[in-house]
Amino acid sequence: MTRFALTLEFDGAPFMGLQRQAHGPSVQQAVEDAALAVTGEAATMHAAGRTDAGVHALGMRAHLDIAKPFTPFRLMEALNARLRPAPVAVLSCEAVDDDWHARFSCTGRAYVYRIANRRAPLTLERGKAWQVTKPLDAAAMHRAAQALVGRHDFTTFRSVHCQAASPLKTLDRLAVRREGDMVLIEAEARSFLHHQVRSMVGCLALVGMGRWAEGQVAAALAARDRQMLGLNAPPDGLYFVRAVYPGE
Amino acid sequence: MTRFALTLEFDGAPFMGLQRQAHGPSVQQAVEDAALAVTGEAATMHAAGRTDAGVHALGMRAHLDIAKPFTPFRLMEALNARLRPAPVAVLSCEAVDDDWHARFSCTGRAYVYRIANRRAPLTLERGKAWQVTKPLDAAAMHRAAQALVGRHDFTTFRSVHCQAASPLKTLDRLAVRREGDMVLIEAEARSFLHHQVRSMVGCLALVGMGRWAEGQVAAALAARDRQMLGLNAPPDGLYFVRAVYPGE
Repeated sequence: MTRFALTLEFDGAPFMGLQRQAHGPSVQQAVEDAALAVTGEAATMHAAGRTDAGVHALGMRAHLDIAKPFTPFRLMEALNARLRPAPVAVLSCEAVDDDWHARFSCTGRAYVYRIANRRAPLTLERGKAWQVTKPLDAAAMHRAAQALVGRHDFTTFRSVHCQAASPLKTLDRLAVRREGDMVLIEAEARSFLHHQVRSMVGCLALVGMGRWAEGQVAAALAARDRQMLGLNAPPDGLYFVRAVYPGE
Repeated sequence: MTRFALTLEFDGAPFMGLQRQAHGPSVQQAVEDAALAVTGEAATMHAAGRTDAGVHALGMRAHLDIAKPFTPFRLMEALNARLRPAPVAVLSCEAVDDDWHARFSCTGRAYVYRIANRRAPLTLERGKAWQVTKPLDAAAMHRAAQALVGRHDFTTFRSVHCQAASPLKTLDRLAVRREGDMVLIEAEARSFLHHQVRSMVGCLALVGMGRWAEGQVAAALAARDRQMLGLNAPPDGLYFVRAVYPGE
């Protein structure tokens, strides 16, 4: 058995999410089906994050255990050939130690959320960003975001379906900046609760529109009450950017 | 009658091209149908460029003559509402003088061509860039491109379907640069022949792959012979970026 670490890029639009599900296509199923076709083996894919339906990835990390001998390059090429036409690509592949685990060895995760802040409907960016027509004050959003950085009980920003044992998480970075008509929100933590990034982005957007005072973000956090969540941002704008591992 | 100048953004993938055609959907038809629904008038759209099937636009300019009174903002909003779900958006709209013509008043056109230079299949960029798997030397492409700048007979780089009276054109700028795994080619001229940008990009890509010596681009130009064209790049990577008008 060789453990292969993969870096995956995917367009989340056609998937019910990363994780295999009974009721529709998933990124996991696409990769496992490709691996079965290539190797003849039923391998289970483990990934650094379990992204929701419609959420994209620029650099998701995952692993597969394969018995048949492959060079990493040949396996990558074969998986990519079999993944077509699904919008999932293996960007890199390497053989790793058996104790390297895409999910459990991961010590950091980074997301970016893209808001297209414009009146005109999206064309080339459709499904790739959240369109907010009201002008956003990115500087106010950035200031308000700093109340969320650090170790907190993020119950307010957690989906009711979240399976994490504890709502306590340490948010290392939450930065908001404008690039033309795009407002970009970068979030970094060891791990996130289910819907945490989208929930934080939704509340920051309310601040950006002027519907929430900057201090309301801190108040919502302190309330530890999902009812205090102003808005959950849609999945279209969310990208899993990278996973961090010790020694990489 | 008021003449309204429009700035259009569109994803070219679902269209047979910008210009109205008998055998399939076009950007012109989408805009004219929206205008008819909004105004009750059958207006003809004129555009700065006639992009091919699959070619995109970030800032195409066009105009429509409308008799019914509209503020530019109201017309833009109504057109955008009617254009859905077609991936065409009106980014700006203004009332202009009757002698302003989107095509004939235009004194400059700029395109960008995006090459995704990587082995892995495209996912989020599918249809939005040309994938070239062989490593490209962008600096060599840029040097070779300079032979095309200036006033030349571009017969080699012209589609057999080109309707221009003369193959003589003045290319003002052709610049190649790399940004990560993207190679970007920017082209500027008063006007271009049919397929000129894609034909120039195709030959530059051959230089970038090392299949053509840098000097072969100049030789192909001097030959004034379509048979000397090495490669016509696909439409997916081509974007009409902007049109220039006197006094703007």
